[in-house]
Amino acid sequence: MDTQQVRGASAVPARHPAPPRPDRVHIINGLPLTAIERKRFERAADGVDQRFITDPSTRDNDVWGVELPMGMRDEATVIIGNPPPEQVADCRHLAWLQTASAGVNAYESDGVLPAGAMLSGASGALGQSVSEHMFAMMWSLMKRLPRYRDLQGRSRWEGLGRSLSPVGAKVLLLGTGDLGSHFARLVKSVGARTIGVRRDSHKPAVGVDEMHGFGELDHLLPDADVVAMTLPAAANTHHLMDAHHLALLKSTAILINAGRGDAVDCQALATCLEQGRIWGAGLDVTEPEPLPPGHPLWKQERCQITPHVAGGTNLAVNADRIVAIALENLQRYMEGRPLRNRVR
Amino acid sequence: MDTQQVRGASAVPARHPAPPRPDRVHIINGLPLTAIERKRFERAADGVDQRFITDPSTRDNDVWGVELPMGMRDEATVIIGNPPPEQVADCRHLAWLQTASAGVNAYESDGVLPAGAMLSGASGALGQSVSEHMFAMMWSLMKRLPRYRDLQGRSRWEGLGRSLSPVGAKVLLLGTGDLGSHFARLVKSVGARTIGVRRDSHKPAVGVDEMHGFGELDHLLPDADVVAMTLPAAANTHHLMDAHHLALLKSTAILINAGRGDAVDCQALATCLEQGRIWGAGLDVTEPEPLPPGHPLWKQERCQITPHVAGGTNLAVNADRIVAIALENLQRYMEGRPLRNRVR
Repeated sequence: MDTQQVRGASAVPARHPAPPRPDRVHIINGLPLTAIERKRFERAADGVDQRFITDPSTRDNDVWGVELPMGMRDEATVIIGNPPPEQVADCRHLAWLQTASAGVNAYESDGVLPAGAMLSGASGALGQSVSEHMFAMMWSLMKRLPRYRDLQGRSRWEGLGRSLSPVGAKVLLLGTGDLGSHFARLVKSVGARTIGVRRDSHKPAVGVDEMHGFGELDHLLPDADVVAMTLPAAANTHHLMDAHHLALLKSTAILINAGRGDAVDCQALATCLEQGRIWGAGLDVTEPEPLPPGHPLWKQERCQITPHVAGGTNLAVNADRIVAIALENLQRYMEGRPLRNRVR
Repeated sequence: MDTQQVRGASAVPARHPAPPRPDRVHIINGLPLTAIERKRFERAADGVDQRFITDPSTRDNDVWGVELPMGMRDEATVIIGNPPPEQVADCRHLAWLQTASAGVNAYESDGVLPAGAMLSGASGALGQSVSEHMFAMMWSLMKRLPRYRDLQGRSRWEGLGRSLSPVGAKVLLLGTGDLGSHFARLVKSVGARTIGVRRDSHKPAVGVDEMHGFGELDHLLPDADVVAMTLPAAANTHHLMDAHHLALLKSTAILINAGRGDAVDCQALATCLEQGRIWGAGLDVTEPEPLPPGHPLWKQERCQITPHVAGGTNLAVNADRIVAIALENLQRYMEGRPLRNRVR
């Protein structure tokens, strides 16, 4: 794998010229909005047709899914939310899709969006939530809390020996976008040193003490106490942490992944954990997802698994931030200004 | 209970006049020392009789216990370490006991130490270790990691809904000594506000934004997002968190106890958790200890239990700090200067 070409979250230029405003805009708004927020979206749409198709009571759901009604698909020019990609593929006149998720790769496959349609995500809304979840996993593993939980289930009062501390630890960040930068600031606040890895190692990131390129990974991994992965999905991050890179980690290293599941070779990781070659792993994302019953990772004592919940609406504030980004982009779209978080 | 009279860790004056140096000092040193440390203790003892009775290879053990050989008990004037209290009671000529633990209450009972014998602990050695363990428990509970661990055991990929964040949270510290102050600094570094409760509310503590007296507890508890308990054992902290005080907590409150187990009424807490009246509890100490099989706390989903491991030698650095405190006190003792951490 050519690690020099890994695409960071920031690889796509932040601003593109916006396409001309369509003559007739038909907006399908799939966000579970409060009454006040709905008024704001109506004002932003400036009188054009906007259908609110989602029950506000679903706002607390873990995932904000939305089904596009058959009759609306043909005329929809704008969709806000995360419908199934195959339903999006039916929308022949779609000019723009704004997702409620930070990741948009489900809509980047061939045949999902019409040629020329824009795609923008909710990157920036989830930094606090995802980084806090990763931070909790790191602490939990350092203090052996998953295994103490197992002992608790058997009413066993039994010490497991030494724990780890982040004080003075070297935290290697694979991915230094919104999520990685938030996580870097958290670990720095409790005494760790942060080393970032990104495609363009000359570009700094808030909270990152030193930055390196992916070509230096083999030299950086043996020295890392924590490896924190927040890479977006991309062909060249597939199995970035493979058997070779896992074997470079020290015996007290902790691996955390909350980016995309396929950036870690989960079979190789299961073997590594089974043999006790690293201290532990915390995974909020896996490959495949959901992790199937019988996958060897489920039974690893040294592994802490959560079911892709670090982002989404994990914190109440996430929903507010996702809505605020979508609203700002609708205003930008209607005024012909460049979109935030545009990826195509 | 008269909460006005709760004795804080700082209630004993830091310095007493030291008693006259005994004519003949016989030191039983029960610490598992490295060769270099042993030399330092020999130098500090300045030629007086010092028996090193503990195998250095036990240094990594969770608990540093020590057995006093029968033949040494009668002549021992100084003991360094934590022997069983009934063995200490045999030492009729004991003038000073320096423990390897922060807590010394096992030796404060009538009949354990001879009249006039001094007692000093290792307070200050465990602040980082205990506060980090509490911090890990807080994060783990906020992100529902104990229950995700339970689901992992059944290979279930299943979201549990919203989590909590310490950003903007009010953390109430019951106990603001070394442990409480360390914990306060940790939670402040991730965005929480800290409210301390101590006997003398005019005395500040590092990391504590505002200080109150125990008499205000009924007003403070309903507003707390996290209650962090690090109280030492004392008659007037027994069951401080009883059914009455637990009932004042909000439904999203988290209780953490790493001080002494009997400061929480564990039966009342089990009922409170069973009924889902608070978000969760993290206990490194319980009443009784060990928590017996069949105790209702073991099976509470909302409770995370660890077996009194937050201090001790949980972090490698704890051992170094315990040894350093004991060495400094031996130097002080031999020179007739007041001891650090003296409690009687």
